[in-house]
Amino acid sequence: MTDNHNHQQIAVEAIKKKLVGKALSYHEIFAIMDEIANKRLSPVLTTYFAAAGFKEGFNDEELYYLTRAMVATGPRLHFKGIVADKHSTGGVAGTRTTMILVPIIAAAGYQIPKTSSRAITSPAGTADTMEVLAPVTFSPKQIEHLVSKVGGCIVWGGHLGLAPADDVIIQIEQPLAFESYDKIIVSIMAKKVASGTTHLVLDVPVGPTMKIQHVHDAEIIAKKFSFLAKKFDINVVIDLNEIRQGAGRGIGPILEARDVLQVLEQHKHRPLSLEAKAIRLAGKLLTLCNKDLVGENVARDILASGKALAKMREIIKTQGGIYIRAVMSMR
Amino acid sequence: MTDNHNHQQIAVEAIKKKLVGKALSYHEIFAIMDEIANKRLSPVLTTYFAAAGFKEGFNDEELYYLTRAMVATGPRLHFKGIVADKHSTGGVAGTRTTMILVPIIAAAGYQIPKTSSRAITSPAGTADTMEVLAPVTFSPKQIEHLVSKVGGCIVWGGHLGLAPADDVIIQIEQPLAFESYDKIIVSIMAKKVASGTTHLVLDVPVGPTMKIQHVHDAEIIAKKFSFLAKKFDINVVIDLNEIRQGAGRGIGPILEARDVLQVLEQHKHRPLSLEAKAIRLAGKLLTLCNKDLVGENVARDILASGKALAKMREIIKTQGGIYIRAVMSMR
Repeated sequence: MTDNHNHQQIAVEAIKKKLVGKALSYHEIFAIMDEIANKRLSPVLTTYFAAAGFKEGFNDEELYYLTRAMVATGPRLHFKGIVADKHSTGGVAGTRTTMILVPIIAAAGYQIPKTSSRAITSPAGTADTMEVLAPVTFSPKQIEHLVSKVGGCIVWGGHLGLAPADDVIIQIEQPLAFESYDKIIVSIMAKKVASGTTHLVLDVPVGPTMKIQHVHDAEIIAKKFSFLAKKFDINVVIDLNEIRQGAGRGIGPILEARDVLQVLEQHKHRPLSLEAKAIRLAGKLLTLCNKDLVGENVARDILASGKALAKMREIIKTQGGIYIRAVMSMR
Repeated sequence: MTDNHNHQQIAVEAIKKKLVGKALSYHEIFAIMDEIANKRLSPVLTTYFAAAGFKEGFNDEELYYLTRAMVATGPRLHFKGIVADKHSTGGVAGTRTTMILVPIIAAAGYQIPKTSSRAITSPAGTADTMEVLAPVTFSPKQIEHLVSKVGGCIVWGGHLGLAPADDVIIQIEQPLAFESYDKIIVSIMAKKVASGTTHLVLDVPVGPTMKIQHVHDAEIIAKKFSFLAKKFDINVVIDLNEIRQGAGRGIGPILEARDVLQVLEQHKHRPLSLEAKAIRLAGKLLTLCNKDLVGENVARDILASGKALAKMREIIKTQGGIYIRAVMSMR
């Protein structure tokens, strides 16, 4: 009780300090994140913190402290060995590369416990689309079990409460509809560290309707992202790509699921631009995991041979779902 | 409904604009104050505004706009002719000059509808102390009536809802325990304009335990205050005074009331430093109202002759209270 009270005092003093433009120590940032994660900081005080960060920005050390403290104040996933992951900064509807990439990576023998979001900036998140085929709500323990069994999973991350302070701050940023680039980077990295990621491909679509609209901004983000990844011993490859439209044909969970299944089944009418993007990202991730691999070739082979399809059937079954053939799902 | 929605949008965009360091127009500031005054802006959005103002400060034009908009979005008091007033930036316990000054000014023939606060930085506000002697909760119409009858009143300002946006913002500032000097000035001036004040003595105590701790800060405040007063056609005299302790003997409503009554009754054991401060402030206000008066002499005469005491009895009776002699109140 006294400890909590002290923490609250440290947090409030630190928020004031940040509001007048001073940098914060790990001790101070931890106090704020701990208060937020445990829902002890009022919305008003949390807003002062969000406003302070938005105005002043954070220096590299502070970005590191923020990420570390967000992870430290929530649960974590535990794996041994290489843990591959993929993340997109988002903003593109109808481009569900994740559901093609995960079975490719798992089929290649790497662990990939993929946590995804529901719809934020597009009509369907990957979690919504995967839910067409299988349940997506699991506990951290269950996810560790899924991955030990079939190498990969595609689940809803919102249920896990990884880096919980981040979720609270995002809520507070909602009414003003702003999130600084610093905040985007910290949000992503905190979730990855909490997920146990060791190797990551980061998809950064840039374009007029994307979250990141200018290549110049994307480069700043990439640089800060690489700095943080290094701090947390995460091997990262960033795929900066200019985009004008979605790579799949459908928009919405069912149509996007159909696009994915058509690619996995190597259907003759499958969306080739979606396939190409998935192979490119999976390829980069594979080469990151093992520099001796020509990743794109390996990814293409796994897809063409039906191994990715077989792995996806396994994943769906293990998550408790039923595989529906793409042709069936077209009716 | 559509109008409210538009107002909210203008307010939110303006808050963002201020957060990135840009100055706001009257139109924008009015939208924010209108949303806040009518309780349509969430605590989170109100906090973003408070944080933005705290960080960036306001230029002189913005300070004027803020004050004007705070007044325009609430009720006002209406009087004809000179309306005298006194205000203290506060922080000194046990210095209830107001309750001596008001009857002096009213006895001199000037209108003085004094609205006071309850305890903020000290154990008793003037409203709390006056309430020992008479009711202090009245409507704007009732206050206009009180003043037309006996020239003055000492009432609780919190009930009136003058400049209501200011009250909401002060609430939002509470958890961080900060209020910028700009905000202090705007708060005071908005209440004065809404009260119909035309002539004002501003008591600015400066000292290590006061709201304003350095003479240098007090001078900046005095300058900004004079700028705003001019904009609103208020004649102001600022009494900058260094203080180390309260001028009365008692702290708390009943003991402070006793101090005041002893001065009004010219009791031989009355607190002379409190009397001296009240005479100085009343004198400055009288000279401001009529430059031909040697204010301090007039104030002292009114007090010594018992006219101030008689006026205070009238005020207490008109507000519905009963006069208690200081000797009685000492038991």
